[in-house]
Amino acid sequence: MALSDNLIVDRYPTRTAEPVAHIERSDATVWGTIESDSLASFDADGFAMIDALLDPTEVADLTDEVVGLTKDPDLWLDDRLIIEKSANRVRSIFEVHRLSARVGDLVRESRIVGLARQVLGSEVYIHQSRVNFMPGFQGTGFYWHSDFETWHAEDGMPAPRAVSLSIALTDNYPYNGSLMVMPGSHRTFVPCQGVTPTEHYRESLRQQQFGVPTEADITELANKHGIAQFTGRAGSALLFDSNLMHGSANNITPFPRSNIFLVFNSVENTLVEPFAADAPRPTYIGSRDFTPVR
Amino acid sequence: MALSDNLIVDRYPTRTAEPVAHIERSDATVWGTIESDSLASFDADGFAMIDALLDPTEVADLTDEVVGLTKDPDLWLDDRLIIEKSANRVRSIFEVHRLSARVGDLVRESRIVGLARQVLGSEVYIHQSRVNFMPGFQGTGFYWHSDFETWHAEDGMPAPRAVSLSIALTDNYPYNGSLMVMPGSHRTFVPCQGVTPTEHYRESLRQQQFGVPTEADITELANKHGIAQFTGRAGSALLFDSNLMHGSANNITPFPRSNIFLVFNSVENTLVEPFAADAPRPTYIGSRDFTPVR
Repeated sequence: MALSDNLIVDRYPTRTAEPVAHIERSDATVWGTIESDSLASFDADGFAMIDALLDPTEVADLTDEVVGLTKDPDLWLDDRLIIEKSANRVRSIFEVHRLSARVGDLVRESRIVGLARQVLGSEVYIHQSRVNFMPGFQGTGFYWHSDFETWHAEDGMPAPRAVSLSIALTDNYPYNGSLMVMPGSHRTFVPCQGVTPTEHYRESLRQQQFGVPTEADITELANKHGIAQFTGRAGSALLFDSNLMHGSANNITPFPRSNIFLVFNSVENTLVEPFAADAPRPTYIGSRDFTPVR
Repeated sequence: MALSDNLIVDRYPTRTAEPVAHIERSDATVWGTIESDSLASFDADGFAMIDALLDPTEVADLTDEVVGLTKDPDLWLDDRLIIEKSANRVRSIFEVHRLSARVGDLVRESRIVGLARQVLGSEVYIHQSRVNFMPGFQGTGFYWHSDFETWHAEDGMPAPRAVSLSIALTDNYPYNGSLMVMPGSHRTFVPCQGVTPTEHYRESLRQQQFGVPTEADITELANKHGIAQFTGRAGSALLFDSNLMHGSANNITPFPRSNIFLVFNSVENTLVEPFAADAPRPTYIGSRDFTPVR
């Protein structure tokens, strides 16, 4: 353990043996200056929807690019490619900004990385990137969770000074497994009970079992905040705080749902040792290269 | 087999060994005269949403009534009570209009049965009634299907001259497993491949495996008709044609979804022998008491 780690007080304890009360967040949500009109409600809601961030041609080009990755035989042997549990299909590909120069170039554009800089008030780096493919008919969702809870416990992210940008590559309807969020829930940290098993990430990327809030927690937050859905045409995007409570239902419609998912962390919030796991997750899931996006 | 059955030509063959092409419906959708404004689009869409069919007091009283049934120890030994597969909870109770005098009285009111009479153009009787409880968090949906396909194959209903009325006892949001329908799909009968197993109903009420359209069928219908959702406050209702393609996703929200489901069949469309099963299903699922509702 590095000397600096000894000096860090864990303000967000989780994965505890006994239940711990909710923690009202002591950190800011917006650390910089909001300039984009589309981000006006970010501080209050913990998220913002950005219509037509990409135009249809860009969506088509990116789709070709990431579908191409799923057909790369080398990647089928790569840990960065995650297979859907119920069918032999690609669910996610990690580090997509490194595997694809086109995605890497997109990330560096100010209309993309600039959104994260406005909220986080500093230079930012990519903590995680991936493309998600939720197929039609058989698409399974993700249960309710806060990303920061996992990144803090398993990756060693000190504070919720990170944002995720989900860019839709397909139309998001209310009924094809689109993301559900609880507006304002980012102000409350919900500690999760249960010690993290070794190499938990291998299972959790397909189906979450630890780091899951209780039904009582979810009920309390949903009654207080309600639920909103991210719907919109392909090319629209959702920027959301790392501690926002979110989840998704399954998708029995024929309409698949795919997106590019980029996590930006502040360079003033770089990772330390995990706060509640034996060892950090692999770097393709939680990067330890803190080079700013430029 | 009764003499009359020999004379019936099966215009809707299904559960066939080989695939059969879609059949454009030769029967009418509206057999009577539409008087209610809320049913104006029923003929074209195959469904109509009726806002505030019941007031909040009626909803509360009915909810008390049906929750009371789930606590009746005698019913736990009754085939009419169906248990949720993934949890030891009540999913449905059949023949609720007989088990509860309050529900029986409601059905006879002209604002309820009158909707069915307008569409079906005759006296009507109850083919099936049930209350459905989709719990929060663990609620599992129903895959895409046409009710008429099942009622024809397994119950011996000759023609799609029946309607279902789903009355919401809880608020229906787009995200808590609310019913999805394909507007206009009622005009197309989609035969299903695969011979019906004996006593299929025991399993199919919990999880459908036969009488299921192919993914190609569902894709074709969804691309042609699109998808609409039944959302609205508790007390609102959906009246829909027996051949409308519909389904529902799972429900990971804390908000349960319960409804009373009433199927009215025309007395001019009473059941014969099943068209594609060894024996009819039990009468609590497909009634053979054709006494008109009065």
